[in-house]
Amino acid sequence: MALIQPRTLKGFRDYLPEAMMPRERIIETARRVYRSYGFRPIDTPALEYLEILTGKGSDETDKQLYKFQDHGGRDVGLRFDLTVPLARFVAQHQQELGLPFKRYHIASVWRGENTQTGRYREFMQCDFDTIGVTEITADIEMTLVINDLFTALGVDNFSVRVNHRAVLNGMLEKLGLGDRSAAVLRALDKLAKIGDKGVREELARTAETTDAQCDALIAMASLSGDNETILNQLTPLVAGNATGERGVAELRELVAATAAAGVPAGRIQLDPSIARGLDYYTGIVVETILGDLPEIGSVASGGRYDNLAGLYTNQKLPGVGASLGLDRLLAALEKLGRLDAVKTPAPVLICMFDAARRNDYLKLAAQLRTAGVGVEVYPEAKKLGKQLQYADKQGFRAAIIIGESEFAAGECQVKDLKAAAGVTVSYNGDDAASLLAALQPLLSD
Amino acid sequence: MALIQPRTLKGFRDYLPEAMMPRERIIETARRVYRSYGFRPIDTPALEYLEILTGKGSDETDKQLYKFQDHGGRDVGLRFDLTVPLARFVAQHQQELGLPFKRYHIASVWRGENTQTGRYREFMQCDFDTIGVTEITADIEMTLVINDLFTALGVDNFSVRVNHRAVLNGMLEKLGLGDRSAAVLRALDKLAKIGDKGVREELARTAETTDAQCDALIAMASLSGDNETILNQLTPLVAGNATGERGVAELRELVAATAAAGVPAGRIQLDPSIARGLDYYTGIVVETILGDLPEIGSVASGGRYDNLAGLYTNQKLPGVGASLGLDRLLAALEKLGRLDAVKTPAPVLICMFDAARRNDYLKLAAQLRTAGVGVEVYPEAKKLGKQLQYADKQGFRAAIIIGESEFAAGECQVKDLKAAAGVTVSYNGDDAASLLAALQPLLSD
Repeated sequence: MALIQPRTLKGFRDYLPEAMMPRERIIETARRVYRSYGFRPIDTPALEYLEILTGKGSDETDKQLYKFQDHGGRDVGLRFDLTVPLARFVAQHQQELGLPFKRYHIASVWRGENTQTGRYREFMQCDFDTIGVTEITADIEMTLVINDLFTALGVDNFSVRVNHRAVLNGMLEKLGLGDRSAAVLRALDKLAKIGDKGVREELARTAETTDAQCDALIAMASLSGDNETILNQLTPLVAGNATGERGVAELRELVAATAAAGVPAGRIQLDPSIARGLDYYTGIVVETILGDLPEIGSVASGGRYDNLAGLYTNQKLPGVGASLGLDRLLAALEKLGRLDAVKTPAPVLICMFDAARRNDYLKLAAQLRTAGVGVEVYPEAKKLGKQLQYADKQGFRAAIIIGESEFAAGECQVKDLKAAAGVTVSYNGDDAASLLAALQPLLSD
Repeated sequence: MALIQPRTLKGFRDYLPEAMMPRERIIETARRVYRSYGFRPIDTPALEYLEILTGKGSDETDKQLYKFQDHGGRDVGLRFDLTVPLARFVAQHQQELGLPFKRYHIASVWRGENTQTGRYREFMQCDFDTIGVTEITADIEMTLVINDLFTALGVDNFSVRVNHRAVLNGMLEKLGLGDRSAAVLRALDKLAKIGDKGVREELARTAETTDAQCDALIAMASLSGDNETILNQLTPLVAGNATGERGVAELRELVAATAAAGVPAGRIQLDPSIARGLDYYTGIVVETILGDLPEIGSVASGGRYDNLAGLYTNQKLPGVGASLGLDRLLAALEKLGRLDAVKTPAPVLICMFDAARRNDYLKLAAQLRTAGVGVEVYPEAKKLGKQLQYADKQGFRAAIIIGESEFAAGECQVKDLKAAAGVTVSYNGDDAASLLAALQPLLSD
């Protein structure tokens, strides 16, 4: 029989251990941080009735939908984000869930995107949202979660950029552009990407703005300085417009609250250029920029919306939430040289020097695992050089070697695979304390 | 516009927080145990080229495949297990991976099964396998992993039932049934389900066995007693047949090795009735039975196979591995009353007694999180009764109440929500030590 060529589907990819380990680490960290704020895990099916999914994102997401008929002839589709399933979920289960409802959802989504952009057609989203709360506590908490998350990931040079749709809308109303806000915000959102000139062209084309309106909009979006400076500059721009004044007041509250909660100065940075293109945001919007790689764009974004599930229920469900851009963050950490080349989660390899001693190796492995040390036993009594080559290739931190002479002498060798050095410690088959003590410095570096 | 009815697709289900939390706990535990043995995480796409998937399982899995054409007109399907993707993955990346290759893969699979059986069309598999190893070390390790996993999950009454295909095959060869092994094993595998009589009928029908052959097969599959007794009874049954003798010798080795590695007596239980219906197993096979719920069948199963990826590569890749039946285990734990009704992963709720004090509550929450305590701040200054009702419903363990008088007195109330009792402790806004001390006994029970 002819062989089938083993290949991944176009637009999709495998994750090998060295790519999967940092991915799991980030997901575990996100989960831990979300949980520490009381966000609750949920999951929804990968497949939904097509009517749940179509017409919920943009024309583009409709076009990118993976859709087909299931075995019962039902029209179904693979979810393209976690927000539409959340809306369906909350509308369906609102009686059991109660409000406020805080959830996180970490799961894959699928979009038949053009792969020439370097994007994949399957990717993971890590969303958290608070539903049913209009108070700003939830908005503040969103920024605290993002701060905790990146801090826990060991990323220190980042800033959470914050703006408020009400500030933008108030300003637009004062400029007489209240009826064209969607077009204006879509254009402004591209300031970092296409620059002043590009934004002016788009504004003139899609929102028919005058030069004076353009000047005012660009001036506002270009405001910079510390939070106090920006608040003071925004205040006159929205003066007399209730919407804008409310927005500035809420931004002021958020800045004070995050400081009170211990967020270091500079982490929360007001940025009037942030608009977030999505129409459904209505309040505070955030993006997260890595100081060492600002050009890759936001790695965690979100905001407040007024009505999550209007298509499925008459109950108005306001919410606020954000999403971690897992793949973008991973690509960034790789670019910054922050990912190890380790391919194994167990740092210690016990070499199988002598197959007749297998049970002794298995016993030692159990002792180390009981002490919390991950350990692999090389499964075959191959040449030691071959076993150490394997240990190197996989990125083990230490190797343990015990042959007949070591067993007889009641000792074993611990090899530091980074330093290519070794020590001999006592090990009588029962007490692994000296061995653990020798491993400790290697495992904690 | 008419509302769209919010509903999950037929055959699929949502996981609400109270269902998702134990699910996440089991997955995290499986991941931790797998990693402690050096198994490495991988992931593969949900979608594969159809030619990768069809004809790999049974006629039934072919029929149950979700298949369609993607945007480029390619024939694609959703994976129905994690073994076929593993075979494709190893064949595709064998140069980079090297051997031995140990991987775990925790991911969803899809099958368009008949929902009348109470099964769902999307479920999660938690597989671990060692590829490229013929030595029995890997087989032994499989049983150690299962033992560690259930122990870590707090399940104590379970047994890992072990058999060896070579013992069965040796016995069949001696009985002159070597050419009908598939049919015989399929029948024997149903002993627990359909009993002696059913198995005899099926054996006669599908393998044309004589009464004497049936007697011998049933007698062998019914052997019981401790491992030593069973080994002694098996020895004469396979005597003179090399295959069977090798099987018994390997079982003897496995029993000794697991004891040496510290597995409590009785956990590893030889069981000559275990056949595992799947044709591709060639060596040791295992099932895991819960002592309190034997009737639900195996909650973790696996075995050794000779050739993982023969359809994709000429390299012969032997392997051994098992899969945790996550949904079956969850159903069992629920039946045994081992699942809490907790809906929140953060055990502490800080009530918002006074919105003007929001920043103080946020600061306290940050202090507790820094100390490792998950805490939610109620987002609005609603009536205290309403907040405590929410705390009860979600299963919070403790509530913290600080109003103006407490702030003035430098103290706060800690409510034990299970005992409906409370204490007042000192808290001056900076030092949360007394508060943490009061929470500790509640959080560790």
